[in-house]
Amino acid sequence: MKKVLIIGIGAGDPDHLTLEAVKAIAAADVFFVLGKGPADGSGETTAHDLVRLRRDIISAHAREPYRVVEARDPERDRTGDAYAEAVVDWRSRRADVCERLVLDELGDDQTGAILVWGDPALYDSTLAVVEEVLARGSARFHHVVIPGVSSVSAMAARHRISLTRVARPLHVTTGRRLARAIGTGTGPAGGPDEFGDVVVMLDAHCAFADLPDADDVDIYWGAYLGTPDEILISGRVHDVAERIREAREQARARKGWIMDTYLLRRAPETGERTRGRTGTA
Amino acid sequence: MKKVLIIGIGAGDPDHLTLEAVKAIAAADVFFVLGKGPADGSGETTAHDLVRLRRDIISAHAREPYRVVEARDPERDRTGDAYAEAVVDWRSRRADVCERLVLDELGDDQTGAILVWGDPALYDSTLAVVEEVLARGSARFHHVVIPGVSSVSAMAARHRISLTRVARPLHVTTGRRLARAIGTGTGPAGGPDEFGDVVVMLDAHCAFADLPDADDVDIYWGAYLGTPDEILISGRVHDVAERIREAREQARARKGWIMDTYLLRRAPETGERTRGRTGTA
Repeated sequence: MKKVLIIGIGAGDPDHLTLEAVKAIAAADVFFVLGKGPADGSGETTAHDLVRLRRDIISAHAREPYRVVEARDPERDRTGDAYAEAVVDWRSRRADVCERLVLDELGDDQTGAILVWGDPALYDSTLAVVEEVLARGSARFHHVVIPGVSSVSAMAARHRISLTRVARPLHVTTGRRLARAIGTGTGPAGGPDEFGDVVVMLDAHCAFADLPDADDVDIYWGAYLGTPDEILISGRVHDVAERIREAREQARARKGWIMDTYLLRRAPETGERTRGRTGTA
Repeated sequence: MKKVLIIGIGAGDPDHLTLEAVKAIAAADVFFVLGKGPADGSGETTAHDLVRLRRDIISAHAREPYRVVEARDPERDRTGDAYAEAVVDWRSRRADVCERLVLDELGDDQTGAILVWGDPALYDSTLAVVEEVLARGSARFHHVVIPGVSSVSAMAARHRISLTRVARPLHVTTGRRLARAIGTGTGPAGGPDEFGDVVVMLDAHCAFADLPDADDVDIYWGAYLGTPDEILISGRVHDVAERIREAREQARARKGWIMDTYLLRRAPETGERTRGRTGTA
């Protein structure tokens, strides 16, 4: 039976690889690398940097004999308003590519590997693509997922913060949804406090800058996490929003792509903090 | 200057360690191991298993000469209703222990290490404890956080699912909060769909079993993830809730502790799925 490993490789630092991922890479006969297109779904075009980083990881840990098969990632339709539909259509065309790769490039009893940035479980389409290929029934294989350090974990680690506070929830959402929530005054932006702290991914338009009622909201922002280009900015969102926007634009112009994520956290009320410190109700 | 490394070691599989964590362990002079008490905050008493696993990881990757200093973890008050206050009080007593360890057991220019299950950023108190020690000002040190594979990522990987769906958010919360949301009909249980899919941690009382309106809700549950004792159960929550509850009770009775987490996901409406498949609006 053919086997496909979907390997989370961490947020950008080659040392984010787990020992499990290292072993999985060493066990693979063929690596499928999709050559161009957005790795993060944010609308940015990822450049050759990311392909090179993946190739570096492969040469460091793969065992001979192995092959790297590069395929062209389909373009995504960015013209329409129907975001989810465009993504689903794009997935389907990625599934065409993936199906061909498994059928044509993977021998029986061979193991293929797909390296995924961050953790394959967080805003990455590889698993959905693989499911779609399997559902078609023509390419038959067994698949295994290897979890990785997500960019969210990397961001929190570099800021040395916890994503969660005692007995509080965490809401993970996209820039697009945050912008809509701000527009409508619902959800994590203007809605009930039950949403808790908010992690935002895939925000190409700096939705945080329009957050209403944000005098006591802190932002912890990170880009190119774990790489030599890493940028970290944190502070009251009103104080640093412009700095983040500028840093983001400059970096994106210079490198041609960006991957970033951030946490929004409303500062505890004084009472809450006092209660916390003294341990009394 | 003294240095303290807070190292995420993954969800239970020694191969969840990242290369960064391996290097950090090799660089440490002293390992601080808190000996007894709940690692997961769920109210379970973790047994010697977890201490042993940590010791195994240390012996596998630490470089001589190194020392392991075991300290007794303070007991937490589980009698009262004031959960957050009890946790904060417990943190403060953990900070006493941590402060003493850094003052007494760590030489100038030495590096201490604390190994944390999963990812230090997700429902773990180590960072808050370290912050509290630093705020007191008596023990001075520099600290570095090394992200790890969270139990949530491990759970998703073992079920081979993505935690997020296209353009949908993810809500991460605790069993206690989910139970309260069910009781009040608000928030992620009975509230607006904006909460999206829900990951629940620290649920000692199987709150999912009481979920209202759950005919079309799937659960993906995992315990002891990445270890030889791993249990995975998934299905419609109504069909498998009792099975999970029994498996959980039996395992906890047998081992004396349990660490588990799960995802709740409302199945897409037929229309949504059809739209998805055909790619048309």
